[in-house]
Amino acid sequence: MKKIGLVLVAGGSGKRMGSEIPKQFIPIHGKPILQHTIDRFSSWNKEIQIVVVLPEEQIEYWESCAGKKESLPYTICAGGSERFYSVKKGLEKLRDVELVFIHDGVRPCVSHDTLDHCYSALENHSGVIPVLPANESLRKIEGSSSKALNRSEICIVQTPQCFDYQKIMKAYSHEFDPFFTDDASVFERDGNPVFLVDGNKENIKITQTLDLELARHLLA
Amino acid sequence: MKKIGLVLVAGGSGKRMGSEIPKQFIPIHGKPILQHTIDRFSSWNKEIQIVVVLPEEQIEYWESCAGKKESLPYTICAGGSERFYSVKKGLEKLRDVELVFIHDGVRPCVSHDTLDHCYSALENHSGVIPVLPANESLRKIEGSSSKALNRSEICIVQTPQCFDYQKIMKAYSHEFDPFFTDDASVFERDGNPVFLVDGNKENIKITQTLDLELARHLLA
Repeated sequence: MKKIGLVLVAGGSGKRMGSEIPKQFIPIHGKPILQHTIDRFSSWNKEIQIVVVLPEEQIEYWESCAGKKESLPYTICAGGSERFYSVKKGLEKLRDVELVFIHDGVRPCVSHDTLDHCYSALENHSGVIPVLPANESLRKIEGSSSKALNRSEICIVQTPQCFDYQKIMKAYSHEFDPFFTDDASVFERDGNPVFLVDGNKENIKITQTLDLELARHLLA
Repeated sequence: MKKIGLVLVAGGSGKRMGSEIPKQFIPIHGKPILQHTIDRFSSWNKEIQIVVVLPEEQIEYWESCAGKKESLPYTICAGGSERFYSVKKGLEKLRDVELVFIHDGVRPCVSHDTLDHCYSALENHSGVIPVLPANESLRKIEGSSSKALNRSEICIVQTPQCFDYQKIMKAYSHEFDPFFTDDASVFERDGNPVFLVDGNKENIKITQTLDLELARHLLA
């Protein structure tokens, strides 16, 4: 297997779930969500080099859960003011990797199948993301009105977003743009194509109480 | 309150869930999903006039669960080859209503708040749908490539889709177009604007096993 790095981005607060604890630290079955996510990757590939990016003010709290950062089998680094800057800082911490997976810390239910699909596709593509078909009708809001979109042309984007390390580093050397909502959009801006593979529906992003309840079920 | 009709469209099979039973009939806590949906509306408004549209070949099965159709407090009618034709047939069965709600039979978790929002908005608008913000990144597929969409401009459309009865009847008198994925798109084609209100996240459409598990939790 090629040398793979993983940047786990965990920048959320718990506000939308009415929680005092930032959502990535909320325990499910006695283990913080972020730890579930870390374990999901390290059980897939024992050699994966992991960087966890956290808001500076949360690092001490995480050390109180997981242990002093010097003793952990992954690197912790402080994030930036936008996801873009957090990912960039995480990427810069990786050493000697050929490929990198960039993943949301609050997606603990990514399947090993999805990771396999991404890894396999990286043999022939330098940018790969898992997607799902859009099952619901979608609308584009245009000022005070809106119009129906053709959902058969639209897919839902998940993570990990996976890249040739050198190419994504180059893409992240450009300036921040508010349009960047994920890594694939940064990668494309640098002129690179992105290849789509099948994701898994369980790979939900835990942002609200309802997601948390579903994740409890999925991780049971 | 104005006189309201409800068209419940339940046209699915159970194939995507590996079930022999069409998904709308799968029991949750001992009661078929479709019955949960019916109950959710009749507990909101005891006077609501309900038409349940089922595939012709499923009507007998439903009678074996719910009772002979002559004895039920709602009308059952056979659907058509497309959702468009099923809704149209359902609409034609309603008598003396001013407003109509058109809802997916496999969305039993619509909240009474969402129904209230829709009803209130119909005072000033002739077409109202509940929507949610898109929390995930989205892409538009264009042949063999794809491009990132600006998700802040996009919303996810739920049901019930709610209309002035006369106006939606007129819209449904036009020809079918494969672009129609929901009732709002039919309504708009006839030149009518659609007003958006806040939906509720629990109002999931049960199409896969994962949705079913979540619905079990939500209906507990």
